[in-house]
Order: sequence, then C-alpha cells, then structure tokens
Amino acid sequence: MTAETIFVGTELLLGNIVNTNAAYLAEQMAVMGFPMFYQTTVGDNAERLEGCIRQALDRSDLVILSGGLGPTQDDITKETAAKVMGKELLLNEDAKKQIEAYFAKKGKTMAENNLKQAMMPKDSMMLENTNGTAPGVIMEQDGKILVLLPGPPEELNLMFERSVVPYLQSKVSQVIYSAMVKVCGMSESDVAQQLDDLIRSAGDVTVAPYAKIGEVHLRVTAKAEDEKQAKKLVKPVIKDIKARLGDAVYTTHEEISLEQSVVDLLLANNLTVTTVESCTGGLLAGRLINVPGVSEIFKMGHITYSNKAKRKIVGVKRKTLEKYGAVSGQVVKEMVGGVLQITRADVAVSVSGVAGPDGGTPEKPVGLVYIACSVCGTVTVQECHFSGTRRKIRESAVAAALVLMRRCIMAYCSKVTFGENK
Amino acid sequence: MTAETIFVGTELLLGNIVNTNAAYLAEQMAVMGFPMFYQTTVGDNAERLEGCIRQALDRSDLVILSGGLGPTQDDITKETAAKVMGKELLLNEDAKKQIEAYFAKKGKTMAENNLKQAMMPKDSMMLENTNGTAPGVIMEQDGKILVLLPGPPEELNLMFERSVVPYLQSKVSQVIYSAMVKVCGMSESDVAQQLDDLIRSAGDVTVAPYAKIGEVHLRVTAKAEDEKQAKKLVKPVIKDIKARLGDAVYTTHEEISLEQSVVDLLLANNLTVTTVESCTGGLLAGRLINVPGVSEIFKMGHITYSNKAKRKIVGVKRKTLEKYGAVSGQVVKEMVGGVLQITRADVAVSVSGVAGPDGGTPEKPVGLVYIACSVCGTVTVQECHFSGTRRKIRESAVAAALVLMRRCIMAYCSKVTFGENK
Repeated sequence: MTAETIFVGTELLLGNIVNTNAAYLAEQMAVMGFPMFYQTTVGDNAERLEGCIRQALDRSDLVILSGGLGPTQDDITKETAAKVMGKELLLNEDAKKQIEAYFAKKGKTMAENNLKQAMMPKDSMMLENTNGTAPGVIMEQDGKILVLLPGPPEELNLMFERSVVPYLQSKVSQVIYSAMVKVCGMSESDVAQQLDDLIRSAGDVTVAPYAKIGEVHLRVTAKAEDEKQAKKLVKPVIKDIKARLGDAVYTTHEEISLEQSVVDLLLANNLTVTTVESCTGGLLAGRLINVPGVSEIFKMGHITYSNKAKRKIVGVKRKTLEKYGAVSGQVVKEMVGGVLQITRADVAVSVSGVAGPDGGTPEKPVGLVYIACSVCGTVTVQECHFSGTRRKIRESAVAAALVLMRRCIMAYCSKVTFGENK
Repeated sequence: MTAETIFVGTELLLGNIVNTNAAYLAEQMAVMGFPMFYQTTVGDNAERLEGCIRQALDRSDLVILSGGLGPTQDDITKETAAKVMGKELLLNEDAKKQIEAYFAKKGKTMAENNLKQAMMPKDSMMLENTNGTAPGVIMEQDGKILVLLPGPPEELNLMFERSVVPYLQSKVSQVIYSAMVKVCGMSESDVAQQLDDLIRSAGDVTVAPYAKIGEVHLRVTAKAEDEKQAKKLVKPVIKDIKARLGDAVYTTHEEISLEQSVVDLLLANNLTVTTVESCTGGLLAGRLINVPGVSEIFKMGHITYSNKAKRKIVGVKRKTLEKYGAVSGQVVKEMVGGVLQITRADVAVSVSGVAGPDGGTPEKPVGLVYIACSVCGTVTVQECHFSGTRRKIRESAVAAALVLMRRCIMAYCSKVTFGENK
C-alpha cells in the first residue's frame, strides 16, 4: 500500500513557516511500512488542490492531506477533497458538540463560522481534535483512502497518533514494530561504517540513521504477522548494534533525550551536578534543565564569560590565564575545581572555547573547545574541534559536554561497583 | 514568470531530515516576485524524478531543484535534468579545477568519483560551490529555466545568494526590493489587526507577517522599474508600520536578532549586564552570548535553580520564599537585587517560573513566569502567562525577558536624555 502526502497552505509557498509536518508524517509512514514516493505542497486554491488530490489518488493508495481545515473561507481542503471523492458535506452533530466543548473549555462561545468545521463528508470517519477546533476526516472510496488532518503540528501529531495509527494498522495485514537506538559520541560516518551491512540490508529488519548534533539516532523497524513476531525480529538487531557500538548507545527509548539520560544517570547514582560555562554561556545548564525533575540533582550553575569572572567567581588563577589562555585544558580544570569550592556537588562540568566568528588564532582556531568534568574528585579534560557557525559550535560543545559527563559518570560508577574507588 | 521547486532525496521521503530548503527558496522566490504554486519532493529514482521535472516544466517557467548532485551513483539529478532538457553531459575543466581546489584547501586529494561532479550539461551555466564539491547548474531551453542546486542548506543558501539571485534579477524586467521589519512584545494577531489593510493590500507593496516565539517579522516588498523606485515605494510603508507599532519595532535590518538589538542598546549606552535565572536555567544568558562581541558588556551570569541557591548565591530571603513562593514578583525582585551585590552591572535580569509539566497549582499554574529587570537602580517586574510544552514556555520566557530588558533600557535612556534621572 503506497502513501503520499499533500500539504495545503499559501504560507508554505511563501516560506512563512518550515514544513515540519512533512518529516513527521514521512517518518510515521516509514515506521508503519507504507512506501512513499512523493510529497506535494500546494496553496489554498481549489483548482490546483483538486489537481493535486486527483494525481495523488491516481498513483498512490493512501493520501494524507494536512492544512486548510480552518473556519475561514480560505480553508478549502475538506470541500475540495469531498468533491473529488464524490461525497456531499453534512452537518455532523458529534463534530458540532466537540467544537462547542472545545470553546466551552476555553471559556469562549463558538463563533458562527466554526460551524463550517462541523460539516463532514457523507460516510466518512470523523477524527477528534483535542488540541484545536478542526476535526480530521478519513474517507474511503474504490480502495483508496484519503485522510485529512489539521495543519498545526501539535494538533496533527496528537490526532495522527490517537486516531490514524490505529486505523492504518487495521488496514495492513502485517504489523510494523519499530524501536529507536540513540548513539552519542560517534560521528554519523563512523556509525554508518560500523553498521554498513545492517543499514544496507533489504531484509525483514531495516536500520535507518538520523544525524543530530553530537548524536546519531537509529530507527530499527521490522514487519511481521503480529507484534510479538516483529519484536522478536527487532531484538537481536538491537543486541547486535549494542554489541558493535558498546557504550555509545545511550538509550533504546524513543522519548529519552541525551540530557535526560545524563540526568537519569545522576539520579540513579544519587549524584548532584553543577556547571560553569564560558563560550556555551548557560546553554549546557539550560539543556539539563529541560529535564523535568532535574531539581533533585541540579541546584545552581555559573556563567563565567570574562576572564575576570573566571577569577572572581571560580578562582581561576591569573597566572594560569596568562600562561595558557582562557581556552585551555588548565583553565577548564581550574574552573571545575573552583566551582566545587562554592557548591559541594558530586559532579562539576566546565566549558571554555573559541565560538567565533572572531577571536581565532593559528594556535587556537575558531571551534577549539575544552571541557572538564569532575566526578567525585576525578577530573577528565577533553579537547574538541568543531566547525560551523557560532551557534553550531556552541551547540556541538554542549552535546560534547553531555557525552563527556555520561562517560565520566559511568566510569566512576563501574569503579565504585568493583571497589576500586572510594 | 511562475516558479516551482523540486526537492530530491529519499532521506526527505523517510523523514530523516526536515526540509528547510523549501521554506528558504519559497521566501526567496516571494521576495523576488516569482509566484509559486507547487513544491514537490521525490526520491532518488530516475523515472519518478523525470516525471516530476517534466510536469514542473510544463506548468511553470522556472524550476529549481535541490539535492542529488553528490558524487555517488544514487545522485541522479543532473543526469535526469540534462536528459529532460535534451543536453549531453561533458567534462567541464573549470568545474574540475574548482573541485580539486576545494579538496586541496581541505588538505585532501580528490577521489575518482568526484569527477562525476565536474560533468556539466552542454550550453549550461556552472555555479561555483564555495562550501562543498557539487557545482550548481542553470539550463535554459525553449523559454524555460532549470536551476540545479546542492542539498546541504549551507551550500544551497550561499550559491543561491551569490549566483542565482543576480541571474534571476537579470531575467525580470522589474526590480524587487524587500526590507524586513522586526517586531517584539506584540502577538501575531495584534500585529495583523493593526496592519490589516497593509497585509491584505494587493498593491505595489506587500507586507507578509512571519510569526516567531515572542516576535513577529514583517517582510515589506515592492516591485518597480529600478531599485531606487522600489526603495521609494517601501520607505513610506515602513514609516507607516513604525508609526502604528511604535517601539515594538526593534529593527529594520534583516540580520539583526532580538538579542543583538538588546546587546547593541547596551553597548551604545555603555551599560553592562548580568543574569540570574531559575526556570530558564541559562538559556537567557546563552542567547545573549549568541551575539559576537557580547564580552564587552556581559561578564557573568548565575543559575539559581533551587531555593537554596537563590538564598545562598543571590541572597533571596528565606521569609520571602516562604511567604510568596519561588515563583513570585517579590523573589525575582530580590534576585536582581542580590546579583547586583555580587557584580556591579548596570542592568540585571532575573527569571523564575513554572515551566511544567508538573509543579503547577491553581494559584500558580504551569506557564506562570515572573521577570524582573533592574536598570541603574530602577526595577521593573513583569508577570507573564505562557502555554505549550516545557521547552516552549522556557523559550517564551527568554524572549519576554529580552523584550522587557529592551523596554526598560530604552525608558532609562530617554529619561537620562531628558534629564529626569541620575
């Protein structure tokens, strides 16, 4: 069963917004095993939209449209799709009630034009929208399926997961199961090289890499007759990936981020943490604080951007700054030492680097970053070289700091477990 | 002259990456005044790609393709496009030299398969790639134009601005000129309401709003016979927008960000700044430090996430925390007071809020954020209510803090100018 997607909205054709729904739906389709060959974007124009829907239905079995379900006259997706499918629009009492309930919850009364959103094509399935007013629609005709979803990502994602996934799963004879393996501290090409045979394999289990800053995510997908069978196919591949990549695999849970895995490690080992940042200027702390519940182990952090702040706040020696410069292994080492004088955290991390675009020298070029991580007295210093814009270099430094923290905490914990330390 | 875009790459159809090139090229086309009705994404498949190119050339005058210009056998865009245009591929010595030079600069030798990238369609124009190895191509045939660009955004953007814009400008009889007006501290709907007639106008000058977190960007575009005339059309509209929105307009320069405008204000008035953050946990400082040259005015910042850190580092009173809670106007006020005891900055900003997803109460719901800004002794406190995920709430708080800083600094400076203060 082949699928394709159509995105409706003049704002997309003007570049006002980036189309993140395209990647979201594409990944969902890939996970569920629907081959997709085309994505199309078209404006709020009935004639051109009709042409796109007809062409898509002609070449694919399943067509998903997103956008143009709003209450205004510009929103024409439902009307156009119903016309192509030869279905008239009728007032749907359930849809009306849901829209009224949505407004009531917000303490507002429904405007007259929202009634347009309660009109549904005859013999169609209504999809509840818990995040907005536009219900979704599924229509079937002559073996073809047309799915209409709202444009705002928070409405589309929830509706897709709650209503469309179960519907589509009932349509396929095979069950698709996919798991995510997240890898840190390895480049995409290193991961691809180590897993070359798995990524290239066209067997029952597919492995697809997704590159992120400082990370590579691997989606492992299997098709089988039932979920149990599919899981059974995926399991040894994950085991194989873990065996090949070792500790670089930080989670096999889709929802766990790198910062979450670091915070989880800290919580599990009852370790508190503090940060002292120069070039990243708070972004490392900011990312750790993304994790709900971090307050258990993160109490405070410092941003020492100037040399004076490095001296005054965390006691970096003037001599060290003069001899080695602010971007040096010696300075980041003194930064963690100094911050541990202020707060008795178990783990301390410091970052200092040349983020650019100016300030680089032949000895210390833009992109040179030093990171130090102290875990219960053992300090590890790492030198990194990044490229790209100021923003990219800073984000890469934050990711590298998280990777280093993870590595140092794990090393400490394994030593403690084997009685080598403390 | 109508335009459309085609994006080539199986990674887009699998959702491995978000297609930011689509929005970039769409905005560029809109700015240059080429109406665009379609965007298509297709995989690395010669037959389907050929179909897409033929359809696009059939309905549009200018077709821009992105992706599939790499050195591997999977990269088939140039070969397919040349076939459609009826042009043979020939080795281009200039292209070969440029690719060799690119590798030499990186200290590497060119691999044999990179020679594929030096093959150019007969009678085509080669576009230099200064950020990678794949040259771009422009082909003309029977009044139609086909432009081939590399997929990586940093290569595409630079090539587009350097080579494609001048080429396309030579093709249109009218000159397009556009300016950007950036607005902060107003919602998109407030801006749209105030500028309704300008946004809806179909005259010589168009105004298009682009919503960002805490900001609205307005692109003002005019077509005229020459640039002087176009600028003359744009000027009064910008003046009109400024008159209607007042101080909410923070810049009319495309490249200036909100944090840059705040840093520029600080630099211009010789004011230093410090931050003390709770729920935003370093993101505000992190954003200020995005601006190169910020070291002149930003020396240090603090992250006081726990109540104890608020007491210990910036001296918030235990009594205040007990009576009003950590998320309160009183606490953010004491936070700025306390941080100014540590560092004698002219401006201090503090943030404390409930970022969620847990921790909300009926009195203090998720999304409640307090911000205080002290400028040379005058403290302003603001209460904000945001919605969305933990990440969205924190980013909204950072944007609101920047807006408040800007407003307070401007108020202080105007007072100083008029001799009311100091």
